[in-house]
Formats: sequence, C-alpha cells, structure tokens
Amino acid sequence: MGLEAKNPYENDEYKSDQAGELGDLITGIDHVAYAVADLDDAIEEYREVFGILVDHRELLDGEGVEIAVLRLGGSTIQLLTPTRDDADLAEFLDEWGPGVHHVGYRVADCAQALAAVVARGLEVQDDEPVPGVLGTTTAYLHPDAFHGTLIQLVEV
Amino acid sequence: MGLEAKNPYENDEYKSDQAGELGDLITGIDHVAYAVADLDDAIEEYREVFGILVDHRELLDGEGVEIAVLRLGGSTIQLLTPTRDDADLAEFLDEWGPGVHHVGYRVADCAQALAAVVARGLEVQDDEPVPGVLGTTTAYLHPDAFHGTLIQLVEV
Repeated sequence: MGLEAKNPYENDEYKSDQAGELGDLITGIDHVAYAVADLDDAIEEYREVFGILVDHRELLDGEGVEIAVLRLGGSTIQLLTPTRDDADLAEFLDEWGPGVHHVGYRVADCAQALAAVVARGLEVQDDEPVPGVLGTTTAYLHPDAFHGTLIQLVEV
Repeated sequence: MGLEAKNPYENDEYKSDQAGELGDLITGIDHVAYAVADLDDAIEEYREVFGILVDHRELLDGEGVEIAVLRLGGSTIQLLTPTRDDADLAEFLDEWGPGVHHVGYRVADCAQALAAVVARGLEVQDDEPVPGVLGTTTAYLHPDAFHGTLIQLVEV
C-alpha cells in the first residue's frame, strides 16, 4: 500500500487488457456532426464566435444533405443541413431541433470494426462500409443501438 | 488555372486568415459527454462493444453527478449520470433521454477564450473558469447560446 489515499472511484480492473481487438481499432474522435437549419448561418457563427473556418463543403445529393467540414486540431466539426423536405435530416430537425446529429469515432479499418461491432450483437444501419466525405470510409451504427446517440465509424 | 475542375463547394474565402485570435485558442475536440441513466451499464457497454476502458471515475457532489472518463486517442469520452433526482442532469435525462449532453472544445487558455467568446456577444453559463475533472479548467457557454448544443471550453 502507498502512502496516499486511493481515490475510490479509480478502478484498476478497467485498466487491464480486457479491451481486445476493438480497443486497438478505435483511435480517436474523428468528428462531431451538428444538424443545423441554415448552413451559411452556422458557418458564419463558427467563424465569428470561435474563429474556425470551413475546410470543405459538399452536396450529398443522394442523402439530401449539404455538409461543411471545419478542421479542429486532428478532428473535424461537420455542419449538416437538409436540402430537401423529405430528407431524413429534415425529419431529424423537425423532431429534435438543431444539435448533435452523430459522433464519428475514427477506426483503423472500417470493415474490421464494423464486423467486430456486429459480432457483439449491435444493430447497424450500414451493413457494409460506404464512402464518406473527403475520401473516408464510413458506417453508421443503428440510431437506437448505442444509448441514444448515432455513432459513425470513420476510416480516414 | 489548373487542369482539374474546381469543386464549387470549396470556398477559398474561408481559408484566409480571418480567424483571428480565437482560431489560435481552440486546438481540438477535448471530449464528447453523454448523459446516461446507469453509469455501470454504459461503462460495460463501451467495454464490450468498443473495447474502450475507464480511465478515471469521480463523484461531483456539488453538481449531483457521477462521471466516468474514457480515453480515446488524444480526446476523451465522458459518461455522466445524476446521483440525485434534483440534479440538472436528471432533468436533462427526463426531457431528452440519454444522449450527448455537451461537447468539450479544447482551448489553450480558458480565461482568454471565455473572454473572447463573451466579447463576441455569446451568452455563457460560467462567468469565469471553474475547475473540471482531472485538473482541467473549464467554462460552459449557455445551453441555448450555440445552435442547440451545450459547449464547454476546456483547458487541459
């Protein structure tokens, strides 16, 4: 025993090597994606308030979404707005209002991480990896699968 | 002009040096914080599904919150659960259910970043920096201030 009192909330059992292969696959937070009603307004707000500038802007026609990517250290912020009333994102905004749409976790290998997640019994939206913005490979877990937040696996 | 077609959504005007001092202050995504109903369940889910382990666990008595910090590359995930029915976080869970509670942006100097944000007219919850978990210095912007997401400035 050391001389210092041990913090009862530090639990060494979690620091063992129980993590297994998935712990090695996930390498960080790739991005936080916000649903916004007006993309230009949100971009301007990020510039004015935080001094963060747009790095890339893209129309995702199939999804009815326009996206702006803002670099923030080694991660990004994504601002998403619907371009059609029948886009899933328009429904999201109607139901929840503006806010976090999903969180992207960066993985070394999207196909491998997706397979590992499925093997653990989690429901997924994308059965196989799909192309994302800026040449990434991505897969959405199911919106209801992980305690209320839509998670996207992202291979850069 | 180059030989390649230019992407109409790439907008060079945003890449100038308009960012100013705040752009230099914000250095990355520090953490994403999730409100969860049961902390042990959420910790176990993160371990089982993603292989991510708890690094630190702490009781924030004043706020009526217990927090678990999970390291993810250079960022962290925070899992928050209320320890009292009258905690703000309990009200959050009642109203919104489990999901993202706030997003932490890492800043070089919390006091300086907070002053810059206030100078830009944004409403804040913390008028001055307060101690956060793991020796950080933090300040919450106002929950309604920034397009629907509670933002925390975090100096590590």
